[in-house]
Amino acid sequence: MKRGLFITLEGGDGAGKSTQIDNITRFFEEKGLVVVHTREPGGTQIGEKLRAILLDKNNTEMSPVTEMMIYASSRAQHVREKIIPALERGEIVICDRFVDSSIAYQAYGRGLGDMVAEVNKHATGGLSPDITFWMDIDPAAGRARASRAGDLDRLELEKLDFHYRVYEGYKKIAESEPERVKRIDASETVDEIRDKIYGHLDDLLARID
Amino acid sequence: MKRGLFITLEGGDGAGKSTQIDNITRFFEEKGLVVVHTREPGGTQIGEKLRAILLDKNNTEMSPVTEMMIYASSRAQHVREKIIPALERGEIVICDRFVDSSIAYQAYGRGLGDMVAEVNKHATGGLSPDITFWMDIDPAAGRARASRAGDLDRLELEKLDFHYRVYEGYKKIAESEPERVKRIDASETVDEIRDKIYGHLDDLLARID
Repeated sequence: MKRGLFITLEGGDGAGKSTQIDNITRFFEEKGLVVVHTREPGGTQIGEKLRAILLDKNNTEMSPVTEMMIYASSRAQHVREKIIPALERGEIVICDRFVDSSIAYQAYGRGLGDMVAEVNKHATGGLSPDITFWMDIDPAAGRARASRAGDLDRLELEKLDFHYRVYEGYKKIAESEPERVKRIDASETVDEIRDKIYGHLDDLLARID
Repeated sequence: MKRGLFITLEGGDGAGKSTQIDNITRFFEEKGLVVVHTREPGGTQIGEKLRAILLDKNNTEMSPVTEMMIYASSRAQHVREKIIPALERGEIVICDRFVDSSIAYQAYGRGLGDMVAEVNKHATGGLSPDITFWMDIDPAAGRARASRAGDLDRLELEKLDFHYRVYEGYKKIAESEPERVKRIDASETVDEIRDKIYGHLDDLLARID
């Protein structure tokens, strides 16, 4: 492989992303490939400082446009400092959330519309994932799982109708980019989900070989 | 006045912006108006946290796009939390640096081009100053003055050719928007500068009355 692979996981909290990130890591490590884990917001030293501002429950006065732009700032740094260099070394980059999160949460959830894609086009410099797994879970069920797991942060504390708008956003993204975005039914068992993800990864490798 | 006035000062460091901000404040306070001082980056609690990231000399790995977007994030919050509410109360807002700084420093200085205006269009939501004073000083002279005044921060430490590109940016902005942007020769005496600024403010008030 001349260039690595960029894989992202998307979906509401409580959808089981972390477990499947471990499975995807195993898939590639068994092939002897180097896997890099990262996450948004964050992923770099500057990004983690921005993440702290975003998730701080005391920043209640933050406007939706500000929030969207801080996410984009963190992404701009993440892409240039970490993701692109790893891909150029031929590594597999697995990222927990990427631009689709901004589209779902800010464009749909917050109602900011097209400006989110416009700003993020500059943040990513055009970089798009090779494959994205959307862990599809009903927002109410996801929230119940996430709240059992511990503290909810500022975004997770949003009202349920916000999370339903986010869900609609993910659905529209998945429908408009079926080649890239694979919908995964997160209500299935962990092993069933793993097998489906592995199937998609086999297809992807066969396609690019 | 049904709505306040939004006044910005622009120009390299060492151009004497602070002194003239005091003079502009006096101009309006003598008319019994409420004056609000603010600055970019910063101006709000969230903005000051972003400012600390921008000016930290240790953040040497910051990409130009990241930098531009953090400035825009700070601006988005500043406009919505502080500037617009003050203007709606009929106050005079005097801001040390605004979008023109991003155009000059990022679009021209860093060579980011049109993306700076595109992103900032969303940051400001279309808000533009009623009048802008560009304190025009030769970059080498400005740097000499600023470095005598104390520590230089991350941006001020840039090489001189960067500051000449910034200067060209300001010149182009002033040429393209002569109604809004008033060029002030910062090599004149403090009193001469004050008188010229007061003349422009008298004209502005006559025009909008």
